[in-house]
Order: sequence, then C-alpha cells, then structure tokens
Amino acid sequence: MKELKQITVIGLGLLGGSLTLAVSRCFPRIKTIGFTHRPATRKKARQLAVADKVVDDISDAVSNADLVILATPIYVFEEIFTQIANALPAGCIVTDVGSTKTLPHRWAKTHLPKTAHYVGSHPIAGSEQRGVESARDDLFDQMCCILTTTKKSNYSAVKTLKEFWSKLGCSVKVMTPAQHDKILANISHLPHVMAAALINIGKPEQLELAGRGFIDTSRIASGAANIWADILLTNAGNTVKGIDKIIAELRKIQKAIKAGDGRQIEKLLETARNKRNTMIKYKMRKRELT
Amino acid sequence: MKELKQITVIGLGLLGGSLTLAVSRCFPRIKTIGFTHRPATRKKARQLAVADKVVDDISDAVSNADLVILATPIYVFEEIFTQIANALPAGCIVTDVGSTKTLPHRWAKTHLPKTAHYVGSHPIAGSEQRGVESARDDLFDQMCCILTTTKKSNYSAVKTLKEFWSKLGCSVKVMTPAQHDKILANISHLPHVMAAALINIGKPEQLELAGRGFIDTSRIASGAANIWADILLTNAGNTVKGIDKIIAELRKIQKAIKAGDGRQIEKLLETARNKRNTMIKYKMRKRELT
Repeated sequence: MKELKQITVIGLGLLGGSLTLAVSRCFPRIKTIGFTHRPATRKKARQLAVADKVVDDISDAVSNADLVILATPIYVFEEIFTQIANALPAGCIVTDVGSTKTLPHRWAKTHLPKTAHYVGSHPIAGSEQRGVESARDDLFDQMCCILTTTKKSNYSAVKTLKEFWSKLGCSVKVMTPAQHDKILANISHLPHVMAAALINIGKPEQLELAGRGFIDTSRIASGAANIWADILLTNAGNTVKGIDKIIAELRKIQKAIKAGDGRQIEKLLETARNKRNTMIKYKMRKRELT
Repeated sequence: MKELKQITVIGLGLLGGSLTLAVSRCFPRIKTIGFTHRPATRKKARQLAVADKVVDDISDAVSNADLVILATPIYVFEEIFTQIANALPAGCIVTDVGSTKTLPHRWAKTHLPKTAHYVGSHPIAGSEQRGVESARDDLFDQMCCILTTTKKSNYSAVKTLKEFWSKLGCSVKVMTPAQHDKILANISHLPHVMAAALINIGKPEQLELAGRGFIDTSRIASGAANIWADILLTNAGNTVKGIDKIIAELRKIQKAIKAGDGRQIEKLLETARNKRNTMIKYKMRKRELT
C-alpha cells in the first residue's frame, strides 16, 4: 500500500464529514484536510472538528494530498476536476464517493493530468439524513464498497484504495463503471424511483393510516431530491431500462390477480421471499447485517 | 361498553396469539379461549400459555363467548362462519383481523345468524414473522385499527369494539369495507407487490451488493406468500387498479429521465419527500412512531 500522509476530502456533507472522521479514527497518523465552498459548512465542520484542517481554497486543499476524495453531488465533479487538475501533486490518487460511475470516469479522463491516478469508489452507505452535523466515524463499518476500474487504471492506486476502504470497515468489490451502474440501477436507483412513486400516488389522508411496512418501504423517498435527481440523470439509460423491467414484472402479477390465479400469485411471492431470505443470510454471513 | 366476560380467538398464529396475550394484559378479568385446528399449534400455544384455555372444538370455543375474533387466513373465514353460526350465543359480537374487508362482510351477512353482530376489524400491525412463537402482548400498542361498518351494523357492537381496540393500545378509525379496501390497496397491498417485483427482477449476485435502503424497501417481501396471495385475491379489483396507477407514475418519472429533465425529476422526488415527511410527522404526533 502506498503510504498516505495526507487525505483531502472535497465536500463536507454527511459522507464527506463521515470520511474525515473515519480516517482520523482508523488512520490516526494521516492528516485530514476538508474543503467546502460554503462558509456556513466550514464553520460547522470546524466546530465539530471533523477534519484536522478545514480550508476554503481548493488548490491549497489538494496540493499536498496523497489521496483526494470527492464527496460532493456528482454534477459538480467535472468542475472540480478542472479546478484541481493543475494543483494535484504527481502520483496523487483521486477518487470520489458518487453513486454513479460512468460519467465520473469520463470526466476524470478528460480533465485530470496523466500523473494523477483516478479510480472510482462507491461505499454503499449513507442514510436519508444529510449534512455534516449527521457525520459519524462509523458510517462505513460493515458496508460494501465498490471500486470501479478500467484497463488503464493504475494497479498500485487500486491496491491502495482497496486497503484504504477495507481499513475503514468496508468489504471491497472491484468492477467496471458500466457494470457498477447497471447493478446499482437495480438495487438502488430503481428502489428510490419506486418509493417516490408509491408516495406520490397516495392521498395524504390515506398515508396517515400507513403501517410499519409502508414506512419502511418508502423510507428512501425522504432522501435529498437534488442529489437523487443527479443520480438518476447520470445513470439515465440503466434507470430507464430498469423501470421497463419493473413494469413488466408488475404486469405479470397484475395478470395473475386479474385471472384469480392464486397459485401463480403465490409462486411469484414465494420466489421473492426465498430470494430475499438468501440475500439476508448472505449479508449476515458477511456481517454486513447483524 | 358491553361487558365482556369471555373472548374467543379462532386461529393462533402471530396475530391470534398476540391478541389473547394482549387481552390478558389489558383485561385481566376477561377469560380468553383460543382455538386452532392444528394439534402442534395447540401444543405450542399451551406451552406458551397464550390463552386461559386452548381448545380443539370450534363450537365449544364460541358457545359462551361475548366476542369472537377470527385470526386465520381470510380464505377460511367463510367456512368458519358456517361452522360457528349455530353455536354463537345471542348478542355475541363477531369480528376478524383480516387485511381485506369487503368479502368478510359479505360472508358474515350470508352465514351468521341475525342475533350475532358482525363488525370488521383491521389492526394495522404484524410483521414478516409468523407463528404463535412470535406472539407478543404489545403487538397492538400504538397501532392504528380500522373498524369497518355498514348501515346495518349494530351500534352497541361498534362502540364495544372501539373501546376494546383502544384499550389494547390502538387508535381506532371507522369506515366502510369498500373505503378500507381501496385505501389498503395503496398503503399495504401495492407496496407488497412492488417489493416482490423489485426482488424478482434482481439477480442474486446483484442482491448481494444491496445496501440498507434496498433491505428496508424489500422487507415486506419476506412475508408469508400464502397469506399475501390471499390478501391480493380478496382485494383484486383495487390492487389491479393500484398497479395501473403506480405504472402511470413510474412512466411519468421515466419520461423525465429520458428527456434529461432534471427540474421535473427533482420536482417529483421533492413532492414525495414532502408528503412522506408530513406522514412521519403525523405518525409521531399520534405517537404511532417514536
């Protein structure tokens, strides 16, 4: 593993703040620098002492970094890559914690210097909470983190990031950005769209009667709308296809209900039940669930 | 409130067992009788002492009851009404805890004697667990319970049941069976169909990467397939319509994603977010959520 002396996190929301806190906990010798362009967030971040230093100049923030991590909404990644390109020291590893990966890879290729090594990261953590005030140093404990690489990725940078996220408590998987975006459409972006649709068709006076099941099913719909719009737009192709697939699946069960075909309904529900139980058992074995 | 001396619960699963336990806790003077046709369940129910008496003859079970509560799957209600009709004492109140209400009302009207008073109940409680071994005396605490009535419902029976469920910890609402089934299609039956569809389109190796969001969104898909097939079949019309509505809503957001219309996507997500937050605040005010 490359020796990391300084890690810079760009963007100090829930994820960014949790990252600097987790680094301080797991790598007490590494210096953490946090950057955010918002004065109010800088003030809060300093009060909460989430990083060793909180700065307001993005070039200064990265100029001595061994690892730079973008933790802002995805739509500003391209601009940030442009802003930091000239200030990055040679050999610096650049990554991000964005929820889609194809566009970040494309932007990194276009804007970052050849002497910097970009690898995508997606720690599948987070919550419907937001802001540096919700940051926690254990947010990445027992989570899965996907690294995205291409044929041109720097081997040593990938190895360093693998160890970095493992040390933070994640189980790490490596895949291409295209594979990542396809899978995440199914397990994250589509569930979000469905939760929002489910809420949107309910009348307020109906929602008041909702039970625990509905509350859990719809929880993710409380996530930040701008961040999620961003995710859906940067993974548009896969999400559009996923919506077609879910509609086909809904039509299948609708057809069985219309036909009064109890056996077919039960078969579809039983398949789902078994698949989910297998998933839960896997997660418990991996200690990602307790 | 009519004085209740004996309450008989037909069916001793999670709900039935929790009911007898909750009655013992909240009405220590009322005698609880539990009936189940399964010898193994009777044995377990006796070991767990969920009721004062666990019996194997359904006529004996109800012949001295002031209140009879059906807690079996809905598809056996009609048969049970036929079996108990002649044994019910005059003035006995009959209810059930089924998740759909139109058919139970129809069956009660056809099979129960005029001297018995049927009112539907739907405590919106439960979990993806099953069986008398999961029964808990606080399952109904701070839950919402819907009573379903028609123009012919006995006023005193409705009043007694209102007080009964309130005492068990529920906030009680009264509506017609048709209203109930329409609302529950949106807030319960449709979410279940969606959770199952979501799991079914995911490949097992994709599901292994799922995060907390997906796990919560899909939780209800682990419910018993036969019980849910039963619910969907006995509320077929509303569920079929609900699936059409959710598909229209999914198409709306799909169209916005295809068009790259970030503002429209954000608007749809923001609407959902606000509606959900309003629901959560309502639930907290009502102390149905803590």
